[in-house]
Amino acid sequence: MAEYTLYAFKESGNAYKAALFLELAGCDWQARFVDFFNGETRSPDFRETVNEMGEAPVLIHGDVKLTQSGVILDYLSQQTGKFGAANDVERRDILRWTLWDNHKLTSYTATYRFLKQFVAGTDPTVLEFLRGRMIAALSVLEKHLTGRAWVATDQISTADLSICGYLFFETEFEVDWADYPAIAAWRERIKAMPGWQHPYELLPDGAG
Amino acid sequence: MAEYTLYAFKESGNAYKAALFLELAGCDWQARFVDFFNGETRSPDFRETVNEMGEAPVLIHGDVKLTQSGVILDYLSQQTGKFGAANDVERRDILRWTLWDNHKLTSYTATYRFLKQFVAGTDPTVLEFLRGRMIAALSVLEKHLTGRAWVATDQISTADLSICGYLFFETEFEVDWADYPAIAAWRERIKAMPGWQHPYELLPDGAG
Repeated sequence: MAEYTLYAFKESGNAYKAALFLELAGCDWQARFVDFFNGETRSPDFRETVNEMGEAPVLIHGDVKLTQSGVILDYLSQQTGKFGAANDVERRDILRWTLWDNHKLTSYTATYRFLKQFVAGTDPTVLEFLRGRMIAALSVLEKHLTGRAWVATDQISTADLSICGYLFFETEFEVDWADYPAIAAWRERIKAMPGWQHPYELLPDGAG
Repeated sequence: MAEYTLYAFKESGNAYKAALFLELAGCDWQARFVDFFNGETRSPDFRETVNEMGEAPVLIHGDVKLTQSGVILDYLSQQTGKFGAANDVERRDILRWTLWDNHKLTSYTATYRFLKQFVAGTDPTVLEFLRGRMIAALSVLEKHLTGRAWVATDQISTADLSICGYLFFETEFEVDWADYPAIAAWRERIKAMPGWQHPYELLPDGAG
């Protein structure tokens, strides 16, 4: 049995944030497939025994069970000494961008892509609203990354891993990275990390 | 001059999260009014010199400038020794619920209330979508708080201060707390804290 078990499915960018850490850090880990599209995360059993929030990812490490990708990333960083902060200023900046990601970037990008790609009949007005919010967030990120290599520190950190979570699904939410050259270059830096894989390769589906 | 300066305006539940900490902890603080409704946070000057994310709150403490309510709460807890974690397990649970608040509760509650209350002509379909997400988050919180006094630890913590940020504006987003008895009781516990004030009393408006 692997040291870490991650409840995950391949369409989940939030699960990917944690999986990418585990893979890039060379951890001994395995995925446990979550059947999101057949309602597993919404089932009473999942909410009772796995995560009351009804969400993946969930990380199991010995007796420790963690949910929320930002908590998992923080924990893994402490465990492995990788992708973390060198001091309190860096720690706060990593947290700052991780919270921003959850509130402003992933929140809208993931929801827009989910409704557009996986839910039939979503009202176009709702899609347009979510897309507008996504673009506002991408514009903040583009400006922030202009002239710098990584989001929060001078190396890749868990803030980068959080923020990139949904940004490799770009064919599913229609952005042209030519409009965001700094984000595009930063994405390439992440893809060049030894061990990088696309979420559809790194995470399981029901057939796996 | 006060020890802490908080960029804030009275309609901002995110600013209220930080202001409530400062007030309940008895800190020496002052608010600096942000003219959100006349576009200050979206102005190039604000983004250049105050917060590239274009958001309040911003906390100034000596040479330290912090943004994101979750970062500010964490910092204030470290500075004052109040409303924080006693150990790593509690620290992760506080972070977990703070992230959940940013991603799932405040994200939808604040946006729903903002568009409903302050923006004329928002498409009702968008409002209905946001309201549905808000109710899903409130249901998770209601279940979580059933049988417990506080969100993350056995005392009030920064997770409670984060989660309650928008929940005193209830007349502006139409919930009936009778449908959420555990949240209602928890709100009363917060209101009973010495020094508690409603955001419209605690934070400034342009007339202040």
